[in-house]
Amino acid sequence: MYTPEAFKITDGNIIEEFIANNPFAILTSENNGKIEVTHLPINRFKDGKLYGHVSCSNIHANIDEIKEVCFIFNGEHAYISPTYYETVFNVPTWNYSVVHIYGNILYIDDKEKVWELLNETTEIYEGQKGWKLPQEEKFKDLTKFLRFFEINVTNIEAQFKFNQNKTKEDTEKVIKSLKDNKQIKVANFMEYITNIR
Amino acid sequence: MYTPEAFKITDGNIIEEFIANNPFAILTSENNGKIEVTHLPINRFKDGKLYGHVSCSNIHANIDEIKEVCFIFNGEHAYISPTYYETVFNVPTWNYSVVHIYGNILYIDDKEKVWELLNETTEIYEGQKGWKLPQEEKFKDLTKFLRFFEINVTNIEAQFKFNQNKTKEDTEKVIKSLKDNKQIKVANFMEYITNIR
Repeated sequence: MYTPEAFKITDGNIIEEFIANNPFAILTSENNGKIEVTHLPINRFKDGKLYGHVSCSNIHANIDEIKEVCFIFNGEHAYISPTYYETVFNVPTWNYSVVHIYGNILYIDDKEKVWELLNETTEIYEGQKGWKLPQEEKFKDLTKFLRFFEINVTNIEAQFKFNQNKTKEDTEKVIKSLKDNKQIKVANFMEYITNIR
Repeated sequence: MYTPEAFKITDGNIIEEFIANNPFAILTSENNGKIEVTHLPINRFKDGKLYGHVSCSNIHANIDEIKEVCFIFNGEHAYISPTYYETVFNVPTWNYSVVHIYGNILYIDDKEKVWELLNETTEIYEGQKGWKLPQEEKFKDLTKFLRFFEINVTNIEAQFKFNQNKTKEDTEKVIKSLKDNKQIKVANFMEYITNIR
């Protein structure tokens, strides 16, 4: 991914937080010249380790463990009109936030570990006080339809492109314009970017 | 992509409308074993033809025209808790809407055609009454930093996964639960899916 210096994110904590907030990933790999794509929620990305699972019906339940794959995580994004800026000479662009995690899939087939990870997945998405997996055989049986994996991370690319190459006046005006257009979540994210840069 | 029959979308008009509403694409291709990923707004997908452009700094401004690439379009999606349903025996899942357009990139280097496409892109995102590209040389000059392309479409995969395999009572309860959780846009999209199935 082409990433100008101004938009590059390298802080591991910021990347972990971004993925925690945007856990619905796109897994891409190549097989015999075809790009294979699967959409899946991942468990977590913590201390450089990423865990997830797919349905066994999925091509990504059984791919070559030595082949590099890419997980794409999308965050807030919005069209930015030239009219959003303070200054005059601008062209249309798109602001966006993405993280790409490259690595190899290592499948986890140990039943105890899979059950532990499935309980963890549930707690992540339900919260500590939410619905819990009943500790019953008919639920444990469902794990046979799932395949869990860990990712051996080889590379991370992260880009938060939010007009960091513009003046303070321009970025403030863009944030205001997004708010005026009811793009509140993108505007809030852009304010956060402005603070961490 | 693994797509159960109940979630498969094949109607070309529905796919065109989905892309018009979700035009910020993810372009993926493979190069020497690496998945290359670029995020870009596309022009339109109409009558089987897809047009777009990237900055010339981008790897996708100059790839092999005979290699198949994949454009991924994401729409509404949400975590679905087992507590969202009417019935009792359910497991957590994720509802989502995606379209994958496979094809070959055919670059467009004719200056007149590029300027015409850039004006079209602007009108798509600004609307007919919005900001227009000034018909001036300094703006025309900017096209040298962009590379436009057409896609020779080879395959389309579309999946709208919104509990269509559940009962009417369950899907209605999920829509209500999403609304209760302030996931209005996903709930509205799910209502639309329920009507088109």
